[in-house]
Amino acid sequence: MGGDAGPPVTVPAALRMSAHADIVLVGAEDRIVAVLEQSGAAPDAPRLSILHASEQIHTGDPLAQTLRHKRDASMRRALALVADGSADAVVSGGDTGALMALSRQILRCVQRIDRPAICKALQGVAGPFWMLDLGANVDCSPSQLQQFAHMGDALARAVAGLQAPRVALLNIGTEAAKGPRRLHEAARLLDADDRLRYVGYVEGHGLFRDQADVVVTDGFTGNVALKSMEGAAWMAGQLVRRWFDALGLAEREALAPARGQLESLRRELDPQGYNGASFVGLAGVVVKSHGGADTAGFASAIDLAIREVRGDLCGLLVRHFPA
Amino acid sequence: MGGDAGPPVTVPAALRMSAHADIVLVGAEDRIVAVLEQSGAAPDAPRLSILHASEQIHTGDPLAQTLRHKRDASMRRALALVADGSADAVVSGGDTGALMALSRQILRCVQRIDRPAICKALQGVAGPFWMLDLGANVDCSPSQLQQFAHMGDALARAVAGLQAPRVALLNIGTEAAKGPRRLHEAARLLDADDRLRYVGYVEGHGLFRDQADVVVTDGFTGNVALKSMEGAAWMAGQLVRRWFDALGLAEREALAPARGQLESLRRELDPQGYNGASFVGLAGVVVKSHGGADTAGFASAIDLAIREVRGDLCGLLVRHFPA
Repeated sequence: MGGDAGPPVTVPAALRMSAHADIVLVGAEDRIVAVLEQSGAAPDAPRLSILHASEQIHTGDPLAQTLRHKRDASMRRALALVADGSADAVVSGGDTGALMALSRQILRCVQRIDRPAICKALQGVAGPFWMLDLGANVDCSPSQLQQFAHMGDALARAVAGLQAPRVALLNIGTEAAKGPRRLHEAARLLDADDRLRYVGYVEGHGLFRDQADVVVTDGFTGNVALKSMEGAAWMAGQLVRRWFDALGLAEREALAPARGQLESLRRELDPQGYNGASFVGLAGVVVKSHGGADTAGFASAIDLAIREVRGDLCGLLVRHFPA
Repeated sequence: MGGDAGPPVTVPAALRMSAHADIVLVGAEDRIVAVLEQSGAAPDAPRLSILHASEQIHTGDPLAQTLRHKRDASMRRALALVADGSADAVVSGGDTGALMALSRQILRCVQRIDRPAICKALQGVAGPFWMLDLGANVDCSPSQLQQFAHMGDALARAVAGLQAPRVALLNIGTEAAKGPRRLHEAARLLDADDRLRYVGYVEGHGLFRDQADVVVTDGFTGNVALKSMEGAAWMAGQLVRRWFDALGLAEREALAPARGQLESLRRELDPQGYNGASFVGLAGVVVKSHGGADTAGFASAIDLAIREVRGDLCGLLVRHFPA
């Protein structure tokens, strides 16, 4: 039900991805059926089913109320399917704060993990890198940063099959004395941890340059960095557009065959390309889709959830954090 | 003497800008004269003079040594010219940490300002905005953030003639409860400050979208945000290049007349475009040029220093912080 558009985006995305997984659509049955019928799909499509939920969580609902009331909210019912073993993963375009709070309440964290983090794969020049936390935890202790390192390591192994992901801490320089004290202590913990391939500090301008596979930071800094990158990418898109618009008519005509490629560049720079954030550290797979995602975006979030399940993310986490 | 290239970049830049200001070249006289002669300029050009300094500060020199010894370093001698009133501003491509430490030691802060900040004007979609601190102060109290707000306000007035700059705090959401506690206290101070036009929180993806003229943050967060934006801009440049290289030969030929514009886009996305950081809060104008700046970049840093002097930045600061 979540996201700016709700079922008109999520249902066609599920329909598309039902070639690869069994999908339960949780929400208002009448609205879901209406979209399925519009899409020309039989409501009894073999790998799609519907679980009716009479309520919905809206962005702006007070969190305390979301946690205590709204027992029949689609988000809660979907998470309960994972908690009771009827489903392997939840994908939601709903409110980030509510999804995180309900995920913690219903799924709980893997043992010895204090709190889940939000992690996204971003496309660097030589492939993806994973960055966390992107906003779930404003203040983080050095020990939490170490947990994030293991969580990011497990995610990179699970979804991309990396054998020994390079783990770095986001800082404002690469020398040991740079940045705040809490980072120095985190660096000491990571450096002493044999189970991680810690490669030191990475700076913002090194993120895309293949210096690390997993970039660890607190949720405040990570969220600022992510949104600043989105802002710069948006600005770059504006400049590309301005450049194109400033061309002469003859040049624009000559460019016509290439314009499709310019469009794909714009899409690659679009924050929407960052769609699909993993809530990692939970005893279950939860993927947050961007609220403004279109069908392709929501389908890619479903695809990510499938890869996390197939890569046994939760099993890796349990082995990373032995009792 | 500073920057990756030294006099071969700084001297031609000074020569170019000497149409607009009297410029003292401080450093190794023989090397300066050699570049001037190569440039075809008479060493007695009317608005250029040379002050010989026998030493130079190198990146990597221990800061304590820089502060106590190297009494004849070009950077120190240049700052002393401002301290004794013989010059109005210093422009340097040298080491940022050394320049900041020597600036504080020799020029000192304007009364009631605890520490200087590093501030840059970035180009948003509707014009420049000023962001500070970009790395001088890793940890900042709410009161320091309020000082930064006044410093950024003064800079925007001095160099761009803004009448009432909109001041915002960089945060991870726009609601009052978002982000760390220290920001909530800073927001309270700014909101209660009649002399500032405080407009609330701004997020990273709003920076370029004309939501504020002055963006205030601590030096750790600001440096991470700046470098992340540079990283994203670099990545955008890589994508543009890849797109161009993927074109067919006929398309590339058709594009030839437009390629100059593509190049200017690349330059606009280049971190070098961010050249010219102001050290603001000092009793004197100090502009740091990017170490890798070319002649045009260094000349634009000189131009910024001229505008800060003409706009009476230091006078504005003194009036912002009455005794």
